[in-house]
Amino acid sequence: MANHAAKPLALTLGEPAGIGPDITIAAWLRRRELNLPAFYLLGDEALIARRAKTLGKALGAEIRIASVTASEAAAAFTEALPVVATGERATAEPGQPDASSAPAALASIRQAVADVRAGRAGAVVTNPIAKSVLYRAGFRHPGHTEFLAELAAEDGRVPQPVMMLWSPRLAVVPVTIHVSLRDALSQLTSELIVSTVRIVAAELKSRFGITRPRIAISGLNPHAGEDGSLGHEEQTVIAPALKALRNDGIDARGPLPADTMFHEAARNNYDCAVCMYHDQALIPIKTVAFDDAVNVTLGLPFIRTSPDHGTAFDIAGTGKANPASLIAALQLASRMAAAKT
Amino acid sequence: MANHAAKPLALTLGEPAGIGPDITIAAWLRRRELNLPAFYLLGDEALIARRAKTLGKALGAEIRIASVTASEAAAAFTEALPVVATGERATAEPGQPDASSAPAALASIRQAVADVRAGRAGAVVTNPIAKSVLYRAGFRHPGHTEFLAELAAEDGRVPQPVMMLWSPRLAVVPVTIHVSLRDALSQLTSELIVSTVRIVAAELKSRFGITRPRIAISGLNPHAGEDGSLGHEEQTVIAPALKALRNDGIDARGPLPADTMFHEAARNNYDCAVCMYHDQALIPIKTVAFDDAVNVTLGLPFIRTSPDHGTAFDIAGTGKANPASLIAALQLASRMAAAKT
Repeated sequence: MANHAAKPLALTLGEPAGIGPDITIAAWLRRRELNLPAFYLLGDEALIARRAKTLGKALGAEIRIASVTASEAAAAFTEALPVVATGERATAEPGQPDASSAPAALASIRQAVADVRAGRAGAVVTNPIAKSVLYRAGFRHPGHTEFLAELAAEDGRVPQPVMMLWSPRLAVVPVTIHVSLRDALSQLTSELIVSTVRIVAAELKSRFGITRPRIAISGLNPHAGEDGSLGHEEQTVIAPALKALRNDGIDARGPLPADTMFHEAARNNYDCAVCMYHDQALIPIKTVAFDDAVNVTLGLPFIRTSPDHGTAFDIAGTGKANPASLIAALQLASRMAAAKT
Repeated sequence: MANHAAKPLALTLGEPAGIGPDITIAAWLRRRELNLPAFYLLGDEALIARRAKTLGKALGAEIRIASVTASEAAAAFTEALPVVATGERATAEPGQPDASSAPAALASIRQAVADVRAGRAGAVVTNPIAKSVLYRAGFRHPGHTEFLAELAAEDGRVPQPVMMLWSPRLAVVPVTIHVSLRDALSQLTSELIVSTVRIVAAELKSRFGITRPRIAISGLNPHAGEDGSLGHEEQTVIAPALKALRNDGIDARGPLPADTMFHEAARNNYDCAVCMYHDQALIPIKTVAFDDAVNVTLGLPFIRTSPDHGTAFDIAGTGKANPASLIAALQLASRMAAAKT
């Protein structure tokens, strides 16, 4: 019942030709079994009806779709998949993005942000987009997350979004993200580590309900540099950041050798591992939580989670898409929204 | 019975003040329960007797020690821990390396290599050494493995040693190893990848009995460079290496995004993952096989395995040292020796 009292989650359409519609339908079908929080899809009712049919789900029997407003969504959720129209029709067939793809995907994201900021939704959960499709339509942002940060700007100030990958077994944050390893080395600064960890620490408190978050900071080099014999960044870049963070009262430990941070016993010693580059963070979480890791964007003025996979054009419309990560993203968004209020 | 017919394994002493003696005793005590292959320690009988006493094991009752030659070791193994004297006394107390440490550790390694090359032992298994202790005594090699490669030189040609971390769940090989991440980027060449993978492929056949080894090659950058948008080494360095390897008839796949290579389903697709740098290889294996991963040196004219941990001075002599990795190293060395013959 608590789920019904809370604000519904605004779920974006993502790339209409991808598996977003598939996993949205699959998640809704498991709402009772998993006691899922109420959510509504910002999209196009006709697209969902077509995809349900493609997936062999009998409309009106196995699945019902309700065309609603955001304020009606929570009440409708038990009996029907609530769809709030964005005004953009999505005509793409599974696996075949078309000219409608980018406008439909972007309108959905814009509307979700507007809803959560206006208090109509408790959080934003985003289905995967196809950046290449958006770029062809003139999209100018490096990615989904940066677009959300732009939409969250206030007085022209764009917040620093921080990517966390979360699972019940491990949470990780890479300090540098989607850049080459060579560029990661040059982008890594004490300031970036400090600003990232401050956001992580603050939101582990406010949105995850952890009173005193324990944050493990990796080294950059093998064996965390082994006292300087295998690299100096631990001493010149990471140690000063740790000092500043501890002065803030943040429980930040490190720099730790990355290879011994992620086995089960080690994971029990911290709430989140902050790593220096993409693979250092994503290798361990995808090793231990491949199906159900959730992508969480910290640093925004609202909650945003996302499944940790792509559009999977090759299996869209086949029924093979696994909704586990979207389900985990919905559950985590609901938990974070509850912790916040 | 097969174990008794095979040549015994030559186990080095390692750093006498570390946990080498502890885990050697602990492994021997479990010989029957685990049907361990026969091994003998190259060391100092008096040191082992003292350590057994420190560990509370009654000499002559719980543990017997037999001072033997290598040729007598296999027959002695069932009833006693066979020790072959190196002539170097080791006087160090647990946790406190002394002037005897380096000569005792080095004599043991030299004798083990001599034994395996003369056919007295089936393989070399090394206990952990303390590089800093050896350096103070004038040791000039970068590490244990390089020292073994020097000892294996023939006609002045030093073989290329290749470090593999092996467990029943995952085997990994880093192409660059104990260098800073910055140096790893500059050391990475197509030639180094090719020479490394050739050795891996050849020994997976000859020493692991895998008829057609499947080798997964990681990318260097996030998402394996995402078609060049996140780095170019996949195209300029790794792809040419893959082409050369495939021309050799080697089943080498890649470059693969490192973050999605190591979950359980992905691991079933290959026999060994070859990674571009230390943490890319060691994070996943230490995440899934922290206690029982084995360090294997390929590329030498003999078999060498080693537990995948250090001297652990802080727990030497306390009984807390876990022999799981040494036991796995003994078992793997025996398996490799059997596959070879």
